[in-house]
Amino acid sequence: MKALMIGESAALTLRDVPVPDHDGECRIRVRMAGICGTDLQLLEGYAGFRGIPGHEFVGVVESAGAPEDREWIGRRVAGEINIGCGRCDFCAAGVREHCSNRTVLGIRERGGAFAEYVSLPSCNLHAIPDSVPDRAAVFVEPVAACCRILEQMEIAHEARVAVLGDGRMGLLVAQVLKTATPNVVIFGRHEKKLAVARTLGLSAQLAAPRFSGARFDIVVDVTGRSDGLTDALDLVKPRGTVVLKSTFHGEAPIETWPIVVEEVTLVGSRCGPFDPAIALLASGAVRIDPLISRVAPLDDFASAFRDARTALKVLFEIAPR
Amino acid sequence: MKALMIGESAALTLRDVPVPDHDGECRIRVRMAGICGTDLQLLEGYAGFRGIPGHEFVGVVESAGAPEDREWIGRRVAGEINIGCGRCDFCAAGVREHCSNRTVLGIRERGGAFAEYVSLPSCNLHAIPDSVPDRAAVFVEPVAACCRILEQMEIAHEARVAVLGDGRMGLLVAQVLKTATPNVVIFGRHEKKLAVARTLGLSAQLAAPRFSGARFDIVVDVTGRSDGLTDALDLVKPRGTVVLKSTFHGEAPIETWPIVVEEVTLVGSRCGPFDPAIALLASGAVRIDPLISRVAPLDDFASAFRDARTALKVLFEIAPR
Repeated sequence: MKALMIGESAALTLRDVPVPDHDGECRIRVRMAGICGTDLQLLEGYAGFRGIPGHEFVGVVESAGAPEDREWIGRRVAGEINIGCGRCDFCAAGVREHCSNRTVLGIRERGGAFAEYVSLPSCNLHAIPDSVPDRAAVFVEPVAACCRILEQMEIAHEARVAVLGDGRMGLLVAQVLKTATPNVVIFGRHEKKLAVARTLGLSAQLAAPRFSGARFDIVVDVTGRSDGLTDALDLVKPRGTVVLKSTFHGEAPIETWPIVVEEVTLVGSRCGPFDPAIALLASGAVRIDPLISRVAPLDDFASAFRDARTALKVLFEIAPR
Repeated sequence: MKALMIGESAALTLRDVPVPDHDGECRIRVRMAGICGTDLQLLEGYAGFRGIPGHEFVGVVESAGAPEDREWIGRRVAGEINIGCGRCDFCAAGVREHCSNRTVLGIRERGGAFAEYVSLPSCNLHAIPDSVPDRAAVFVEPVAACCRILEQMEIAHEARVAVLGDGRMGLLVAQVLKTATPNVVIFGRHEKKLAVARTLGLSAQLAAPRFSGARFDIVVDVTGRSDGLTDALDLVKPRGTVVLKSTFHGEAPIETWPIVVEEVTLVGSRCGPFDPAIALLASGAVRIDPLISRVAPLDDFASAFRDARTALKVLFEIAPR
């Protein structure tokens, strides 16, 4: 099958490789896959990953390694990306995303979805309703990551929320949090992306170098920059909450004493629940069309990855209908 | 009255200054006051404070500025250190420690307790029961700060807790958290202080440069060092909680991505409730005698402050019975 590969030099190439054959798992023919910030970081050496990247996808189950999984064949699915060992305390508690022996689709010891086929256990799969087209279904995984914030904290209807960062994740986080409170403001540095935010009905502001004045109950840092946390601490109220969503790689110099003096809570937030994400995409509460900058075939991977550095969402169309 | 003063050059001197005369407040004759890590930091320029430092004290109310406060006269008291404006949202919610216009005893725009007299509003005062001697009552304020952690989170009886730092605050935090769970381990770098921890019935270990193996549900950083947070993140479980108690001044270089990937929660924690602190000192659940390294008169301030840099607790005895 055709697949993008991160090789030893962390360079990306298009190769012809064997179809994955994970025992007992489902084989999915990939239809679309999205380029995520993490994919860009993998190319800079993050997590030391070698293999096929890609973890945001929609596809159709083509075969099942286990007889009891045959019901999945022919279904259109998105897939949770963490695969646990099944034996540790986290797996026993159903929290495979924190299993220390986990593999992670296209990120850690498991080939991903920038390929014609991908393999996952059936317990990771979620059927996509017909009302959600492929180009929306490919957003299920990142929208689920946004829904994780709603699992981690109560957001009161009157809470004031700031989203720092006008990239693809910022625009998704802001839409998801707007289902909890109308008071969501997105701060960014790119007028064009802020304009997209406004077409989505979001309140959007050009971020000042230093913030002042109004302060927020909850600030979500999705800047992907080392100074994002410092800006977030500037914006949050005493006893407020800062949510960290960016896996910025490298050391960020921060002053920790304001966290103590203002009794701020910082919450790290990663993967989230797929079912609410599918529901938000199906209902139109989260809209993705204005976020799609480009749809490319796998062959155009070089320019697609280049575009993904500055654009909103770049998708690969791998097996068109 | 005699008082220690931090002057323009941030140097400490003993001076003869007017007795404080805050309108409507209670005037307290100070009996004992404790040197805290924050006092040492004030001398290094933290918070830009100029005036009389000292915020851990016990004393006797000598006069009251308001007629309704006369009942306080003659009572032995400890005092909460934050004085709010009384008009903002935080003050309205009874959270004067986060009033943005607050003064803070011996820390921010208000003279402190390293003096013969100190002034506070009666709403900040807490009567000390006869069963708690002066040398214990002077610990009410720091023990209250430890009790704040119990307000901020549920600690299950089976939770595993690590306290990073074997200084005076570490030994108090560990004793307070041991009232919630028996599984408290204190990590430090000083064999002598760890030995004191063991006399207090605490489990104590010499901290390795890098931790490995067992990981903890809750890790409290009271190291006062820039690398304390990094060590804490090393020790905490996925989805665990790191409590920041150290107001380390200056930038700490930290990698934030493990906070995201492991979904760690960081909680800043400052001042706490006095009533539970008084109860813990009265019951003997928190023992302070092994922590007292020295009791000095104000005149010996220079050597007392020098000792406080390496010793456990140094107290001033200001108005002996």
